[in-house]
Amino acid sequence: MITMEYRISDKMKALKPSAIREIFKALTDPTIISFAAGNPSPESFPVDELARISADIFRDSSTAALQYSVTEGYPALREDVKARLANRFNIGRDFDMTIITSGGQQGIELLCKTMCNEGDTVLCEEPSFIGALNAFRSCGANLVGIPMDDDGVDIDALESAMKSNPRAKILYLIPTFQNPAGTCMSLEKRKAAYELAKKYNIIILEDNPYGELRFAGEEIPTIKSMDNDGVVVYSGSYSKVLSAGMRIGFICGPEEIVQKMVVAKQVEDVHTNIFFQMLCHRYIAECDMDAHIADIRKLYLHKSGLMLSELDKNMPDCVKYTRPEGGLFLWCTLPDNIPQPELIKRAMAKKVAVVPGETFNSDPNKPSQSFRLNYSTPSDEQIIVGVGYLCDAVKSML
Amino acid sequence: MITMEYRISDKMKALKPSAIREIFKALTDPTIISFAAGNPSPESFPVDELARISADIFRDSSTAALQYSVTEGYPALREDVKARLANRFNIGRDFDMTIITSGGQQGIELLCKTMCNEGDTVLCEEPSFIGALNAFRSCGANLVGIPMDDDGVDIDALESAMKSNPRAKILYLIPTFQNPAGTCMSLEKRKAAYELAKKYNIIILEDNPYGELRFAGEEIPTIKSMDNDGVVVYSGSYSKVLSAGMRIGFICGPEEIVQKMVVAKQVEDVHTNIFFQMLCHRYIAECDMDAHIADIRKLYLHKSGLMLSELDKNMPDCVKYTRPEGGLFLWCTLPDNIPQPELIKRAMAKKVAVVPGETFNSDPNKPSQSFRLNYSTPSDEQIIVGVGYLCDAVKSML
Repeated sequence: MITMEYRISDKMKALKPSAIREIFKALTDPTIISFAAGNPSPESFPVDELARISADIFRDSSTAALQYSVTEGYPALREDVKARLANRFNIGRDFDMTIITSGGQQGIELLCKTMCNEGDTVLCEEPSFIGALNAFRSCGANLVGIPMDDDGVDIDALESAMKSNPRAKILYLIPTFQNPAGTCMSLEKRKAAYELAKKYNIIILEDNPYGELRFAGEEIPTIKSMDNDGVVVYSGSYSKVLSAGMRIGFICGPEEIVQKMVVAKQVEDVHTNIFFQMLCHRYIAECDMDAHIADIRKLYLHKSGLMLSELDKNMPDCVKYTRPEGGLFLWCTLPDNIPQPELIKRAMAKKVAVVPGETFNSDPNKPSQSFRLNYSTPSDEQIIVGVGYLCDAVKSML
Repeated sequence: MITMEYRISDKMKALKPSAIREIFKALTDPTIISFAAGNPSPESFPVDELARISADIFRDSSTAALQYSVTEGYPALREDVKARLANRFNIGRDFDMTIITSGGQQGIELLCKTMCNEGDTVLCEEPSFIGALNAFRSCGANLVGIPMDDDGVDIDALESAMKSNPRAKILYLIPTFQNPAGTCMSLEKRKAAYELAKKYNIIILEDNPYGELRFAGEEIPTIKSMDNDGVVVYSGSYSKVLSAGMRIGFICGPEEIVQKMVVAKQVEDVHTNIFFQMLCHRYIAECDMDAHIADIRKLYLHKSGLMLSELDKNMPDCVKYTRPEGGLFLWCTLPDNIPQPELIKRAMAKKVAVVPGETFNSDPNKPSQSFRLNYSTPSDEQIIVGVGYLCDAVKSML
């Protein structure tokens, strides 16, 4: 029998598990059609190549692949990342440093730990990625949400938040295929946010897990590609192009900050699984990453197109939804006369799961009329059937 | 050119990279004989079995092995850990919960984040494991070192530290084959520390990465095996028995605390590399873990014996060293008339690297006459030659 009285830290006492992870765990019923996940399609994993390279590593480099390694990451993979960021995105200057992290998630948490004392502020888009918001909360940071338009955060609101929050240390942005809103920040707003961050001495954390997954429209330069002043820490990941389960991401940012992130990483997990870091490097060296990414884009163009055409056919006009040019998500918004919690309840009764919009708010008690749909995980048939049920649920409330 | 002025958090500003990791990086000169590492012997990695199982996983379960998974860990592996802890060590009660972590290191950091506000206190053995001390520092915790005898911490000093530090939340102990001191805490002291922790409502973090590596003497029950009150969070690892580079460890502790650690882990890395969690599970299910561990023990009995016999033959009597019954380390202490920094400098000039004792102090500015020797990583020849050089360095200072 427990006789102790546990004194949990203030920051963790306040933190709830991610609603999405909890929904994910609840989805053990195989008859449920889930549009709730953020998983890449299993078809995006290059299994045969990874299996072959894995056997090679066990054959020729098993000791290095199973022994302790350096915190910064496998040197050859760091070079690969650096080269791709430079050549493909014009990212990285002499003052920058690139390291490997245990998924994109770790880089987000490490930056917050490195910059924020308890009670410091992180500015974020409203809505934003729940995993990042919870990482900031777990560091004891205070969140201030900035309202968004279709082309990114409201710049006036951003400046007034910067002005009125002298303890703001980080501006967290997902400018490309924003999660959950599915929108892209315009080039003008990217430039404006950069200049404001510079003016108010606030670090931009540019989170870009979906940047390689554009299947329509014109590419927009990343904020990091403009960074000649050491304003931006850029976070990327192999989760959506090679494997999510291996947990490999990367950070590129000013060396003074990234060196401190390395020290923070050292005490979190010493280093990222080294076998899979070697696997990534050899995949990049031996296989055609660009061709593989082109295949994934084709797949998601098809899946998002299918979901959109089913919505176009069956969803009443009063419901608005985004038309994504990349990434994994659609964002739907209900009219005021259809209460979102009741709609989600009716969808769940028909065995369709979605993520309610308030999950992504800086204050999750603030209600939302929106919900998020994922199209990368469900099969084509599940998309057709599930969207049909979802539309039926809306129609039942008209 | 950087125009920003970076405002690093107070806790990270104060934190220096681990001296050991830095020594490790400096050891690129292949002619240096390193007794500085804490690496397991590569001979302890069951390469052939891991290679075969890895191919099996790619063949029959690639989707699950490459996709996102749950934060708590692969369910089958959690069951394996739970069963081994219960059957082998009498660890785990109804109120406990077992999860998988990204190495033992992550569990240590997660517990501190879960329990400590900035400015709260962690009590630790003096000297203690640098990776844990830095994890506590990275959470903004205050460290209080408790002096040690050959049979563990001084119990009177422990009680007076508990009494005078009302913000003490955690007592961090490595009772078995302590790193760096190489000693074992006696059963009496384990019981006394447990009762004190219960009395003062302080959680014991029992770190036991070397518990399976006893090659001499009698086993002493873990503190967790006595825990009927929810006092102890127990941390273990597969780094020393299967692979260090894969980063898989585990935590067993009161569910109320471990549930909060899961939330903290979710925002650090979502989950541990799932492929290697499956690999561990199948290794345990299909191979003979006990026979493999018996082989590792034999290897370390040989290596520690060789290092001891070389020291016995060549080291002047004024230098004292422990005679370990398990683990990876020897702890040497110089007489007052031989300044340790000068000895380590002379050893390094002869291309022998060791870790200076002050690295392991709660206050690293407090000098130490001791240094740590590792015998698991060097070859037999390196042990013979390196110990010879080390003894020559001592003799040069007599």
